[in-house]
Amino acid sequence: MSEFRKDPVSKRWVIFSPERAYRPSDFVGEEEIIEKPKYCPFCSGNEKKSGDEILAYPKKPDREPNTPGWWIRVLENKYPALKTSDSLKKKGIGIYDKMDGLGKHEIFIETEEHIKCISELSQTQVEKVILAYRDRYVEISADKNIKHILIFKNYGEDAGASLEHSHSQLIATPVVPKRVETEINGAIDYYHFRDRCVYCDIIDQELIDKDRIIEENEDFIAFNFFAGKVPYETWIMPRLHNAYFSTISKGQIKELARIIRRVIKRIKLHLGDVNYNMVLHTAPVNTSTRLDEVFHWHIEIMPKLTKIAGFEWGTGYYINPVYPEDASKRLREIVVVDDDDAQK
Amino acid sequence: MSEFRKDPVSKRWVIFSPERAYRPSDFVGEEEIIEKPKYCPFCSGNEKKSGDEILAYPKKPDREPNTPGWWIRVLENKYPALKTSDSLKKKGIGIYDKMDGLGKHEIFIETEEHIKCISELSQTQVEKVILAYRDRYVEISADKNIKHILIFKNYGEDAGASLEHSHSQLIATPVVPKRVETEINGAIDYYHFRDRCVYCDIIDQELIDKDRIIEENEDFIAFNFFAGKVPYETWIMPRLHNAYFSTISKGQIKELARIIRRVIKRIKLHLGDVNYNMVLHTAPVNTSTRLDEVFHWHIEIMPKLTKIAGFEWGTGYYINPVYPEDASKRLREIVVVDDDDAQK
Repeated sequence: MSEFRKDPVSKRWVIFSPERAYRPSDFVGEEEIIEKPKYCPFCSGNEKKSGDEILAYPKKPDREPNTPGWWIRVLENKYPALKTSDSLKKKGIGIYDKMDGLGKHEIFIETEEHIKCISELSQTQVEKVILAYRDRYVEISADKNIKHILIFKNYGEDAGASLEHSHSQLIATPVVPKRVETEINGAIDYYHFRDRCVYCDIIDQELIDKDRIIEENEDFIAFNFFAGKVPYETWIMPRLHNAYFSTISKGQIKELARIIRRVIKRIKLHLGDVNYNMVLHTAPVNTSTRLDEVFHWHIEIMPKLTKIAGFEWGTGYYINPVYPEDASKRLREIVVVDDDDAQK
Repeated sequence: MSEFRKDPVSKRWVIFSPERAYRPSDFVGEEEIIEKPKYCPFCSGNEKKSGDEILAYPKKPDREPNTPGWWIRVLENKYPALKTSDSLKKKGIGIYDKMDGLGKHEIFIETEEHIKCISELSQTQVEKVILAYRDRYVEISADKNIKHILIFKNYGEDAGASLEHSHSQLIATPVVPKRVETEINGAIDYYHFRDRCVYCDIIDQELIDKDRIIEENEDFIAFNFFAGKVPYETWIMPRLHNAYFSTISKGQIKELARIIRRVIKRIKLHLGDVNYNMVLHTAPVNTSTRLDEVFHWHIEIMPKLTKIAGFEWGTGYYINPVYPEDASKRLREIVVVDDDDAQK
């Protein structure tokens, strides 16, 4: 069983998950375990071995569970950082605090085929991925023990992935994570000061300044963030104000799939097959007050070009060698061919 | 000129330092630039090329500046993230805030010889390194524009170093960094609640529990932190309460050098030639109120075994696969030979 432990100074919780590494040589850096090179547990045909599906979108209505013929499969992570439990035990040891590693850790397998990057999936396939995010988000939100649902993607080994087959992850926690709390508190401060959503103001500022925008469509804008932590940090924001990702409409899913594919294609055409993390930022769930007015869900994409070093560990600040205006200029110059199968 | 930009939501400052990378292929991940393989600018004989020394401890009194014959040399970083300036210009652009990249960025070259790791330096040499930290810390503190001085070491490429010759860095900033502020605020909260220093209580708890302690000597204890962010995260704490590193005595320098060398030897004998970051945590300087009572300076060593991935980016939490009690047990079992030249 994994365990949360609290830093008594910073109040940060750390998840100790000893099932995941045993010897120094076992360190894999992330939630998956490296499998034999020529065997991919996520490929079609290996469904029985990869585990029971929590959710699947079958290609034909008569498909049996855990057999080929699917758009998306969602599984519990084979080596979960957190596990479902009925109660949340909290405990003190002297001055320290800890609690059981309650929560959920799921994997979204995004395609039957051995495709690596979400930008190489078809428009229809990416729409299914986002629909699966929404379905799991809505279902897990119903569990009152869960306070936050993080959906994210690690692409490439340097970004923490150990399996190359295109996949995302979901980690649901019984506490609101520190960085989410910081974001929410910042957004509340701004709202108190200006009576407006800070993210709506960011969108307006980007549309005025124009020099950080990469892509726009009816429902979303994509831009290199003014104070990005890493070079080429790209935010994708819905124009429509909504704190909760669960509110995403069918029309928005289509546009989001389109802009994600186009943005990642631009990044990879410019930077090569760069590793990246993609993180969905959405308001915590089951909180005592609703956050509809103050927060605004969005996606942050962080290419892995720099390293976290002593300066970042010591300060929580980042040194970024590329101005977002320069990154954006270069990304806009890339020609992206729109191979949108869903439009055909 | 580099520039600070503020995230309007999290209020985190990011340093944009475009002198450091120009094309995608230029990314080096940290503050130094990769030099030609067989040429090391930090080795004795190359003093003229590496830059003018701000401070040096000569081996003989008649040594000319920037020539061989030194224990330690301190230089301005050749590609500084921040530069000294007379005034601190702050400016708004629409809803965004920015300011000039004022500050200092210095390099400590820790030996004339091409030695990689501080644990391989002699006891005398490591004492000189710590003495140089103190000297620079005290001198820079006198500049009222400086609010925080971070001293740190990146060992190995994965930890952000681009030159292998043993060295440390100093970055002085005109604002108190976010993570330091979080630590200080946490320590203040604890002090208000218990009227005691949280770090003194941590030391007491470690001495009661014993199972996380790696090394002890007269002035310091070294232990794997209860809520370490990364596997084998090791803290070295002075037994004597002091918020400011500048208060370190000659006797403490000797003991600190000894425990750093022994701890890193243990880590490397157990984990192999692992990359790591070492960060000195000390109270901010030139603040409106002194922090003598609430803070307690210390050193944190973080081996680079796991990767920062989507989960960490999204939550600010960490998943750690090794309990500190297990790490500590393994590190205590290592036999360390004490080759203490200063005791001879």
